[in-house]
Amino acid sequence: MMKIIEGGICAAKGFTANGIHCGIRKNKLKRDLSLIVSEVPASAAAVYTTNLVKGAPLTVTKQHLADGKAQAVVCNSGNANTCNANGIEVAEQMSKLTADALQISANDVVVASTGVIGQPLDITPIKNGIPALVAGLGNNSDAAAEGIMTTDTVKKEIAVSFEIDGVECKIGGIAKGSGMIHPNMATMLVFITTDCAISSQLLQKALSTDIQSTFNMVSVDGDTSTNDMVTILANGMAGNAEITTENEAFSIFMQALNTVTVYLCKGIAGDGEGATKLIECTVCGASDEKTAKTVAKSVICSSLTKAAMFGADANWGRVLCAIGYSGATVDVNAVDVSFVSPAGQIAVCKNGAGIEFSEELAKEILLEKEITIAVNLNSGTATATAWGCDLTYDYVKINGDYRT
Amino acid sequence: MMKIIEGGICAAKGFTANGIHCGIRKNKLKRDLSLIVSEVPASAAAVYTTNLVKGAPLTVTKQHLADGKAQAVVCNSGNANTCNANGIEVAEQMSKLTADALQISANDVVVASTGVIGQPLDITPIKNGIPALVAGLGNNSDAAAEGIMTTDTVKKEIAVSFEIDGVECKIGGIAKGSGMIHPNMATMLVFITTDCAISSQLLQKALSTDIQSTFNMVSVDGDTSTNDMVTILANGMAGNAEITTENEAFSIFMQALNTVTVYLCKGIAGDGEGATKLIECTVCGASDEKTAKTVAKSVICSSLTKAAMFGADANWGRVLCAIGYSGATVDVNAVDVSFVSPAGQIAVCKNGAGIEFSEELAKEILLEKEITIAVNLNSGTATATAWGCDLTYDYVKINGDYRT
Repeated sequence: MMKIIEGGICAAKGFTANGIHCGIRKNKLKRDLSLIVSEVPASAAAVYTTNLVKGAPLTVTKQHLADGKAQAVVCNSGNANTCNANGIEVAEQMSKLTADALQISANDVVVASTGVIGQPLDITPIKNGIPALVAGLGNNSDAAAEGIMTTDTVKKEIAVSFEIDGVECKIGGIAKGSGMIHPNMATMLVFITTDCAISSQLLQKALSTDIQSTFNMVSVDGDTSTNDMVTILANGMAGNAEITTENEAFSIFMQALNTVTVYLCKGIAGDGEGATKLIECTVCGASDEKTAKTVAKSVICSSLTKAAMFGADANWGRVLCAIGYSGATVDVNAVDVSFVSPAGQIAVCKNGAGIEFSEELAKEILLEKEITIAVNLNSGTATATAWGCDLTYDYVKINGDYRT
Repeated sequence: MMKIIEGGICAAKGFTANGIHCGIRKNKLKRDLSLIVSEVPASAAAVYTTNLVKGAPLTVTKQHLADGKAQAVVCNSGNANTCNANGIEVAEQMSKLTADALQISANDVVVASTGVIGQPLDITPIKNGIPALVAGLGNNSDAAAEGIMTTDTVKKEIAVSFEIDGVECKIGGIAKGSGMIHPNMATMLVFITTDCAISSQLLQKALSTDIQSTFNMVSVDGDTSTNDMVTILANGMAGNAEITTENEAFSIFMQALNTVTVYLCKGIAGDGEGATKLIECTVCGASDEKTAKTVAKSVICSSLTKAAMFGADANWGRVLCAIGYSGATVDVNAVDVSFVSPAGQIAVCKNGAGIEFSEELAKEILLEKEITIAVNLNSGTATATAWGCDLTYDYVKINGDYRT
C-alpha cells in the first residue's frame, strides 16, 4: 500500500519549494538558499542538536515552533551563522524577510543555516535573493535539496504515499549531512513535509520516537554538529481525519515516516565526507535494545574499522575491539561476526575467536559499495542497526582545509 | 636535582634488557621480541585496558602480579595474541619459556603482546628466539624499545635521576603506541623500571594516580586497545629506605615518575599513526578538574579539529564545537581559544565568538610540529592537559590495509 513516489518535499499537497544561488558561496553554480512553503499553516515539530554550542538559527526556530505551527522553512548553506555575536539578529532578519515576502508571520518560519562556524553571515545576499527565491516557488524539491548541501556529493530526497482510512497521504523529505555527524543527537538538516492531518503533539511524538532508531544511529565522524535539526511540517491538506491519538492511523503514519527517515539516513551515511561506501552494522541477540544500539554505534564509529572497510580488509578484530570498548555489558566470548554485501556473506568470528575463512571471498564482499557488519551477541533477542561510512583519504583532504 | 639521563630502562641499577628479531614479523630487520630483567625480584604494579575484549597476555600478567612482585617482562610485537582460542595457553608458554631461561619463577614474569588481533600466535619463533634474547641481555634499552614497536616510527625512551634522602635513584621507561589509543583507559604498552625502593602498594598507588593525568589523557584515534598496559618494576637496588608511606620521598618519586610518563605521552601522541604533528590541548579556568579533562580530551579527539590541524587551518569553530558536545557543563559564551606554537600565539575566539585575527600568522603558528590549543573556560581555576595528533592521509593508508 505504501509506495515510493517522485516529488520529494513537493509530493505532499500544498507544498512548494525552491533553491537558488544568492551569493553566500563563491561558486556561482552552487545553490545556497532554499525555501519550502505550505499553502496553509501546518502542524510542526522539530528535534535539535544536543551540542551546547548551538547555531543561532536553532534558537530562533525553537521560539517560532513553541506554538507547534509553521508555514515555511528557509535555509542557507555556506555559513552556519554560529558563534557570531550578531547571530540571533541575522537569523531573525532571515525569518522576517522570508515572512514579509510570503505575507505570513515571521513566527511561522523555520530558519536554518549550515556551513562554516564563526564567520559573520552577511544578510545582504539573502535579502537580495529572497524575491527570486519566492518568485520561483513550485515543484522544485530538487533545487531546495541542492541549496542545503555543503560537502554533500549527492542530493538526498525521497517521498512515499500511503493511505489512512482510504485517504491517500504523502510524505517526503530532503536532507543534507556529510560531516560533523554523530549518534544520539539530532544530527543533520532534514526537512520533511506531509499533507497528512496530524496534531502538533502527535507529530512531535512521532518524530521524537522515530529519530531514536534512525538519525540518532548515524555517524560519519563522531563530531556532533552545532546546527543540525530535523523538522517536519504537516499541513493536513490530504483531507484525512486529523490524527490526535495513538491509533492505527498513527501507526501507519509512523511507518511512512520511518521509510522516509531510514532512506535519508542511508543517504547521509553513504555520502559521508570522503566516503566510498555505506557501512551498516546490524546487531542481534542482544540482552536489551540499549545494548544493541550501543554496540552498533560503537562499531560504525571506530576509526580503525572504518579505515579497514575503506581498504576492503576483513580485519574483524577491530570490530570485536570496538564492541569491547563500547561501554555495553557484553559477553565477548559469545560474539559472532559476519560481513555481508551483494557479493555474498562470510562468517569471520565465532564465540569471540577467529575462524578460518576465505580471504578472497572476504575481499570480494568488502569491495562492494554497501557493506553490512552483522554482529550476533547470542545473549538475547534485542536488535539494532546503525549506519556509517568508511574513513578515506578524501575525508582528510576535505577537512584539512575546509574554510578556503 | 632531577635530571634527564641516558640509558632508558637500563638506567636504573640491576636492570638489563634486549630485543631481537625472532620471526613473528616477516621483515627480518624489525625486532619483534623484547625482554627486561631485574637482577633481583622487584615490587611491581600495572594498569590495564578497560576494553572488555582483553588480550590473553593481560589475563596472565594480572595473575602473575597478584603478589605485587615480578622480575622480568617479555613482550612480542607483530601479533596481539587476542581473540584466539589458545591465547591463554600461548601467553603462559611465553612466561614459562622466559622463566626457565632466566631460572626464575613463571609467576614473576610480565607477559605482553601487541599487533594484529585474532590470528593465532605461533610459539615456535618465540621458543627458538629466547636463548639468543637472554644471551644478549645487557645495556640494550634501545633494542628492547624497538622490539615492542608496531606502526611506531620512532622509539620512545627516557630516563631520569633523582635523589631521595641523599641517595641517587633512577627511573626509566620505554613505550610503544601509535594506533588504537584513547583516553581513560590504560592505553598503550609502557614498561618502566626503577631502582628506587618502594612497596608494591605504594608503587601501584603512584602508577594509578599518575596515569589519570598522563596516559589517560592521550588519544590518537578514539579506539581503545585490547592489549595495552603500563607496568612498573621497582627493584630497590638504589639503596634508599623503602618508601612505605605517602611521605616526602613518595612525592619526589611521583615527580620523577611523572617526568617519565609525560615525556612518553608526548612521544606516543606525536608519533600517532600517520601523524605529522603533536597536538596539545590545555584547558584552564574550569569549574573543576573533571570538566577541564573532559573538555581537553574532547578537543584532541575531534576528527574535524585533527584534520584542520593537519591542514594548518585555524578553524577554531571546530574546537568550540568539540567543547560543546564534550558532555561537560560549560558556559560556551565565556570560552576563549588561542593557538600557540614555537612560531607564536594568536587569539581566535573570545567569549564564544570569533575575533579578527591574522590568517597569515595563524598559518605560520599551525605549520609547526607541536601545536597547543589553549582553551580558557573563564569559569574557575581548574586545569587539564590532553595530548593527541593530527588526522592525516597516512592514518588512512596505514589502517586501510594493516594486516598485509
